[in-house]
Amino acid sequence: MRLKRTHTCGELTAEHINQEVILNGWIATNRDHGGLIFIDLRDRYGKTQVTFSPEKVPEIAADAKRLGLEDVIAVKGVVSPRPKGNINSKMSTGEIELDVTELEVLSESAPLPFLVSNRESGSEELRLEYRYLELRTAEIQRSLAIRHKTYQATRSYLAERNFIEVETPVLMKSTPEGARDYLVPSRLHKGRFYALPQSPQTYKQLLMIGGFDRYFQIVKCFRDEDLRADRQPEFTQIDIEMSFVDQDDVLNLAQGLTRSIFKRVRGEELPEEFPRMSYQEAMETYGSDKPDVRFEMQLREFADFASESQFEGFKSVLANGGRVKAIVAENLADKYSRKVIDGLTDWVKTYYGVKGLAFMKAENGGLSGGISKFFTDEQLASIRKRWDVADNDILFFVADEDGERALQTLGALRLEIARRENLIPENIFKPLFVLDFPLLEFGPDAGRYVARHHPFTSPQLEDVPLMESDPAKVRARAYDLVINGYEVAGGSIRIHQQAMQQQMFKLLGMSAEEAERRFGFLLKAFQYGAPPHGGIAFGFDRLIMLLSGTENIRDVIAFPKTTSAMSLMDEAPSFVDEKQLKELHIRLSEDVKPAAE
Amino acid sequence: MRLKRTHTCGELTAEHINQEVILNGWIATNRDHGGLIFIDLRDRYGKTQVTFSPEKVPEIAADAKRLGLEDVIAVKGVVSPRPKGNINSKMSTGEIELDVTELEVLSESAPLPFLVSNRESGSEELRLEYRYLELRTAEIQRSLAIRHKTYQATRSYLAERNFIEVETPVLMKSTPEGARDYLVPSRLHKGRFYALPQSPQTYKQLLMIGGFDRYFQIVKCFRDEDLRADRQPEFTQIDIEMSFVDQDDVLNLAQGLTRSIFKRVRGEELPEEFPRMSYQEAMETYGSDKPDVRFEMQLREFADFASESQFEGFKSVLANGGRVKAIVAENLADKYSRKVIDGLTDWVKTYYGVKGLAFMKAENGGLSGGISKFFTDEQLASIRKRWDVADNDILFFVADEDGERALQTLGALRLEIARRENLIPENIFKPLFVLDFPLLEFGPDAGRYVARHHPFTSPQLEDVPLMESDPAKVRARAYDLVINGYEVAGGSIRIHQQAMQQQMFKLLGMSAEEAERRFGFLLKAFQYGAPPHGGIAFGFDRLIMLLSGTENIRDVIAFPKTTSAMSLMDEAPSFVDEKQLKELHIRLSEDVKPAAE
Repeated sequence: MRLKRTHTCGELTAEHINQEVILNGWIATNRDHGGLIFIDLRDRYGKTQVTFSPEKVPEIAADAKRLGLEDVIAVKGVVSPRPKGNINSKMSTGEIELDVTELEVLSESAPLPFLVSNRESGSEELRLEYRYLELRTAEIQRSLAIRHKTYQATRSYLAERNFIEVETPVLMKSTPEGARDYLVPSRLHKGRFYALPQSPQTYKQLLMIGGFDRYFQIVKCFRDEDLRADRQPEFTQIDIEMSFVDQDDVLNLAQGLTRSIFKRVRGEELPEEFPRMSYQEAMETYGSDKPDVRFEMQLREFADFASESQFEGFKSVLANGGRVKAIVAENLADKYSRKVIDGLTDWVKTYYGVKGLAFMKAENGGLSGGISKFFTDEQLASIRKRWDVADNDILFFVADEDGERALQTLGALRLEIARRENLIPENIFKPLFVLDFPLLEFGPDAGRYVARHHPFTSPQLEDVPLMESDPAKVRARAYDLVINGYEVAGGSIRIHQQAMQQQMFKLLGMSAEEAERRFGFLLKAFQYGAPPHGGIAFGFDRLIMLLSGTENIRDVIAFPKTTSAMSLMDEAPSFVDEKQLKELHIRLSEDVKPAAE
Repeated sequence: MRLKRTHTCGELTAEHINQEVILNGWIATNRDHGGLIFIDLRDRYGKTQVTFSPEKVPEIAADAKRLGLEDVIAVKGVVSPRPKGNINSKMSTGEIELDVTELEVLSESAPLPFLVSNRESGSEELRLEYRYLELRTAEIQRSLAIRHKTYQATRSYLAERNFIEVETPVLMKSTPEGARDYLVPSRLHKGRFYALPQSPQTYKQLLMIGGFDRYFQIVKCFRDEDLRADRQPEFTQIDIEMSFVDQDDVLNLAQGLTRSIFKRVRGEELPEEFPRMSYQEAMETYGSDKPDVRFEMQLREFADFASESQFEGFKSVLANGGRVKAIVAENLADKYSRKVIDGLTDWVKTYYGVKGLAFMKAENGGLSGGISKFFTDEQLASIRKRWDVADNDILFFVADEDGERALQTLGALRLEIARRENLIPENIFKPLFVLDFPLLEFGPDAGRYVARHHPFTSPQLEDVPLMESDPAKVRARAYDLVINGYEVAGGSIRIHQQAMQQQMFKLLGMSAEEAERRFGFLLKAFQYGAPPHGGIAFGFDRLIMLLSGTENIRDVIAFPKTTSAMSLMDEAPSFVDEKQLKELHIRLSEDVKPAAE
């Protein structure tokens, strides 16, 4: 490299005029204006227009003319003012250009599979195969810059508050609970395996027992799940744990951290106090444990009207202990034809398993259509009055004997209508803490209770007596931070007593022997002076998605995998040599063809 | 928790006298002085003496008396001045004590396997089993606090200099070169495996190709090796890569970072310019590519004297192209009896494979004993003069036809003598860059050349012609940072041209097909505008060992593994369910007993 840069491509301004400088970068555009060659040279910091004059430097201009997009070059030249008409006030370097006197071609590019200046010119699959090219796009450069800023903002906030950063092992013991572990065969210990952490949960609790008081780590975690579009096999979390605290201490810390991140990364002021809402209220009001509160359209109780109606469907649901709830979608009645409503009905039936979707439309001061015929005019007037219904509003009703399902369905419908109708304001952030989650839920697959958060979550103290008599009613000291309908963080106050932890394992259907085999080290640690403690973990990738305004998790991860956990760039996972497997004391299953590709 | 702390145990001073406060912590000591109970309460921040008066609070004092070491308690009380005679000026809280009015026992401890106040009261094995207890010791608290500070100092130094932090995948493609990969079977892709990164080398190069310009990451890496005492299966490195740079840019950055870390973490001023020395000079002068330059005792050339002597052993070594070198160990001749010298001779023969160790002793103005009889008085006088030998110095000589072996043996002897004789000053730090490493070395196991640094290292441009004719002579653009004899960091300017990389793979005995199968993604990426780039990686655990002055790598890792890669706390790796293996399409080898423990 003969010409090493003196400046970056984002640095030169009118102040540098007449200076001789060297720039290094990629060719973003190359135009020939009657022999004069204009190249926009790009690096991470910006773009600078560089010009090659066929009169002053004929040979270099001829070389420059032949250069293609994404070639890497070094140019030496004099910073010159742009002609008045060419000044670009949108660019930091828009007042100047570089009048080139020397050129060094550092690396040429083959013809491109897609344009760096237009990401959509290639399919996502193609872009993942050539991820190094997509990394040059403005979109990915921007979201990874936000990611970088968020790392730094997070750590400095926590380090300033006496949190100590500790790395926990990646090669740990397999204790699957919920999701599947990724396993790593041990070469030195035949037949044994490590697991990759689904979270450093037990380690951070052991750090509290070890007296570290306040811990954090930005850490990779792993879940071998059938991936959804917004999941990755490896993901990052901000992991936090604190000793001698109650729920409010953790919430206040999480609130302060979130405010600091949004302020430092986006200049965004979040409210000083985030609203707090119980799980039950969130379900009743929004039909979701992670409500998007950027818009209203709250769920309404319809049981009393339904029970007085002539609609046997609703009445039998109520008689069987079910729920009937409604939403009022404002000013949409004329837009929602029978066909549209049928479409929504099919959607809720298919995806939420309810029997149907009922509706009424508000017109001429009354309510008509749909199920309105089952109600007296007086009842209809009363409904309009209670909910302050206006003409052209449309009311949707869902009833189900499984009350939770009725709520969730209506919650999903609320979101769906809001999305369709653009009712959700963009570029605002509405944080919310959801509290008092149930400790357990019945897992139909497992045929037993499973921990809603995880098995180390403390029950609410007043509900402890219910653990024996009515476990489903026990509330946890667990909490989520929700922003714009996304669960951004979740945590709990932990169990720190051996007996309580043993009772919890038992509730989860674990025998004492199994509990000992899997978590004996933690149960034992509780015997040696465990402080009360609790914590929270932020989904870092999700947080960056919110901060950078993307819905695609692959935009915020440098080298993401597909939904089938594959890297299209290098084709990982790949076949390996028989010798490697032999050393690890494993073989492929009989039904797997050997490693011939 | 009724009594939540208002202050930590390291916080209270005379300023707080007469304030009512609450402390939470662990019982470090519990003494009964004539009924008055003195407890030293400990947390991460310090210790506070708390007193229970049997007159003022008889019941509480009685409870306190029964409390044991490492019980976790909360105490409320009034900050009081200590009686004059009891003031402890070494403790920040030494002027006060807490006069307790309320006590809450948060968690009791079972009898301890070893004392937190005296780490040596338990074997290392026992301490690893109860690691959470060892984490409470002053030694581990201190080294993990240093580790925490080093993380923050590293990141802020790099972030301030426009480095962007990027996470690279943990589940990557297996491309073993040198060490063994840890493998992770894929459930979704039958018969395929991910590997855990030995380093993010290819990813950081792809980030440079992706235009990120300056990258860093503090990242876990993995090597499935037969472990040495100072190695762990997972280790941490500070990973750095830069575009458009030459070697000096990377060295200056590494120097600035190291200086900043030592200053911020230890208040230590390292030299502004670290000495730089070629690999060849380091080998010639210190017999090591990571010389400890805290003391002298440099290697001396002895070929000319040897060739003029009557000592056939030396002369035949020289005739066969070998080397004869010497060291002068000052003022030790009287201490190094025949027996001591025989011991050293056995040691170099056993561990370094040389044929012997020769010596002479300086006395009465001459040189005598050992091999002195093969030299004339004139020659002996000339040796004394050239090397400025004083009476009672002892000279050691090593000759070997493998010149490198002669140098290494004498380098090891130099260190061994320095250690035995306490010649190495403590608490000073001598950094040094070693440059111009050979690109390749002949791997006797592999039966071919292997990359000395890694296969992505650029040769020195003037040596490129030798790649065909005399590969062993090619010097790399590779460099190490050495401090006090430890390799703290290593890096190189990388190859960024496809053809050169292909030539390198060929030199390493890889066919074009194999190169394509393993590193095709990187070779392809070089086609799309790869900037010149280079970087360096710091061994983070080693750096923390230096900063905290420990020789035990397990002191600087929260949850370390043994040299057989096992966690004694939770017994990872462990047996797993047959079902888990089945889902991953693998079986245990036939010679492995099933997972019954």
